[in-house]
Amino acid sequence: MSKYWNEKTKNISPYIPGEQPRDRKFIKLNTNENPYPPSPKVIEAIKNAANEDLRLYPDPSSTIFREAAAKKYGVKPEQVFAGNGSDEILAFAFAAFFESTETMLFPDISYSFYPVYADLWNIPYRTIPLRDDFSINCEDYKTPNGGVIFPNPNAPTGIPVPLAEITSLAENLLEQGKVLIIDEAYVAFGAVTAYPCIEKYPNLLTIHTMSKSAGLAGLRFGFAVGSEELIEGLCRIKDSFNSYPIDRLALAGAVAAIEDSAYYSEITAKITATRERTAKELRELKFTVLPSAANFLFVKAPDIKGSDFFAALREKGILVRHFNKDRISDYLRISIGTDEEMTELIKRCREII
Amino acid sequence: MSKYWNEKTKNISPYIPGEQPRDRKFIKLNTNENPYPPSPKVIEAIKNAANEDLRLYPDPSSTIFREAAAKKYGVKPEQVFAGNGSDEILAFAFAAFFESTETMLFPDISYSFYPVYADLWNIPYRTIPLRDDFSINCEDYKTPNGGVIFPNPNAPTGIPVPLAEITSLAENLLEQGKVLIIDEAYVAFGAVTAYPCIEKYPNLLTIHTMSKSAGLAGLRFGFAVGSEELIEGLCRIKDSFNSYPIDRLALAGAVAAIEDSAYYSEITAKITATRERTAKELRELKFTVLPSAANFLFVKAPDIKGSDFFAALREKGILVRHFNKDRISDYLRISIGTDEEMTELIKRCREII
Repeated sequence: MSKYWNEKTKNISPYIPGEQPRDRKFIKLNTNENPYPPSPKVIEAIKNAANEDLRLYPDPSSTIFREAAAKKYGVKPEQVFAGNGSDEILAFAFAAFFESTETMLFPDISYSFYPVYADLWNIPYRTIPLRDDFSINCEDYKTPNGGVIFPNPNAPTGIPVPLAEITSLAENLLEQGKVLIIDEAYVAFGAVTAYPCIEKYPNLLTIHTMSKSAGLAGLRFGFAVGSEELIEGLCRIKDSFNSYPIDRLALAGAVAAIEDSAYYSEITAKITATRERTAKELRELKFTVLPSAANFLFVKAPDIKGSDFFAALREKGILVRHFNKDRISDYLRISIGTDEEMTELIKRCREII
Repeated sequence: MSKYWNEKTKNISPYIPGEQPRDRKFIKLNTNENPYPPSPKVIEAIKNAANEDLRLYPDPSSTIFREAAAKKYGVKPEQVFAGNGSDEILAFAFAAFFESTETMLFPDISYSFYPVYADLWNIPYRTIPLRDDFSINCEDYKTPNGGVIFPNPNAPTGIPVPLAEITSLAENLLEQGKVLIIDEAYVAFGAVTAYPCIEKYPNLLTIHTMSKSAGLAGLRFGFAVGSEELIEGLCRIKDSFNSYPIDRLALAGAVAAIEDSAYYSEITAKITATRERTAKELRELKFTVLPSAANFLFVKAPDIKGSDFFAALREKGILVRHFNKDRISDYLRISIGTDEEMTELIKRCREII
């Protein structure tokens, strides 16, 4: 604690990202990275952009990406926002759409960055418990509130929310004049995206990342799709924070990624197949495995504490994620790796239990 | 204006960056970019980092950069912070060190992003007029206040502040328990950096960018050097905003840049020589030219309004920056380009006046 920190800095509890080991070699199943490399076209585009033009500022509006995304998703470029990872977009969205005089809502078990963003911008929030089966009940959010955010599929559970329930909630919040943010970081792995509904629901913002399905966690690129007025709100905050959050290399890579659907459909299919096979094998070992539409599984081992199981896997060279939190402290979140990595995981799980 | 924007978003006046032309070819002297390309070692390092590891998150702490900078500057890695451009670090610093109950100070004519950051984080501020000769008088800031920020050399004037005046102000603010931020974006071009004083002044933060002297505006990389407690304060805000603001490519490029002092000393010397020659020739044309220690000149043409002169240069294919603001509306900020570009500028100026 320093006397030079203001009250916000003293009181905030920063988000703690998953471990990025620098020394020991692990099978890394702890931060939901893609086990497959990005498209070769992305690598090529970045190498081509590594040139003398780096002396010049990038386009502050990331226009070429917004145009490429608009073409792919059948929306207007003005309905697309680009950011330095979806985390930055989430930070901007909390700054833009939620009021410090109204209580916003998100699930009690969800992305643990949400309460940090709320505290950063002094936004009061209330968490809504998941159902006993860890699913989100959209009906619970149809109360007077300052806005709602949750991921679909939810993290760290992996459980998807049906689109009809999301649109029904969007309708309710539209009547209240409030914003609904669907954080679609993992949507490509089995949930249904809500972006086609943005024309009907100008209060609906979907946020996407290139870190998971596009295999580009190291590039830092996210984007949002929503009504022009929501996108303009994000732009106003961005332009009050950092004019150019996206560098020329990330911009080139992101455009190449969004244009190579064929490659990404293939690796996404491989990951979901590996997920289903892994879930089946873990269930055979008497694990509780929540139904996942993401690139991870949320699992409980039989007769062993979550923290102990986490430590035992780490000892055996496998990194997974453990959240020391009510209701889920006996669960582990395991990212889906390659088939070989998951075979090794199953083997190690068998040894431990 | 949208009903989904909160009060902050409705009321803020975002920063407007200099024009980045997409179509017409200009001599671009409007955003203080380096006319010379980045070091070839930087390009090579980036190309090498454009590989399959992009699927993995970067190190959230940018450790290899902090170690490289610590070695170069003779400080500890814990005294170095890395950010997505110095603009992001400025945004974090306003969030971390200035209180919404105290009035911070900066010059009336300075980087026009400062009031935007203050508004973003609800920090009250008061601007202090520059002297009549447009220099900063540090004595004016020795009053009870919530903290101070200014650039050295100042922008858009280019006038440097002597180190002894900065340390004297740091001493005064140390007694008040307040932070002094020196924004050293342009320091390499002729001012004296204050970072060697951070041991004596734990309240002193120096902020640096790779966009100007390192010729990497397109890479988005900045860093700060200060006491461990100030750097930790920045980390707390960063980790409450975006765990990984720096991608793997920018990290690799920034390390290569900080290690290639020889290349950068050479191009910095060329730019300062071109600046002095340009200033001399403009003075011969009866221009008022403020004494600059930066990679730009702040100049007033004889007998022509600033906005008219800006438009006339644009018409002739030269982009410069005009600020429509009291006291400086007849001045233009002209970035230092190559010798050829500045010869063309002089020629065009002669035609206009």
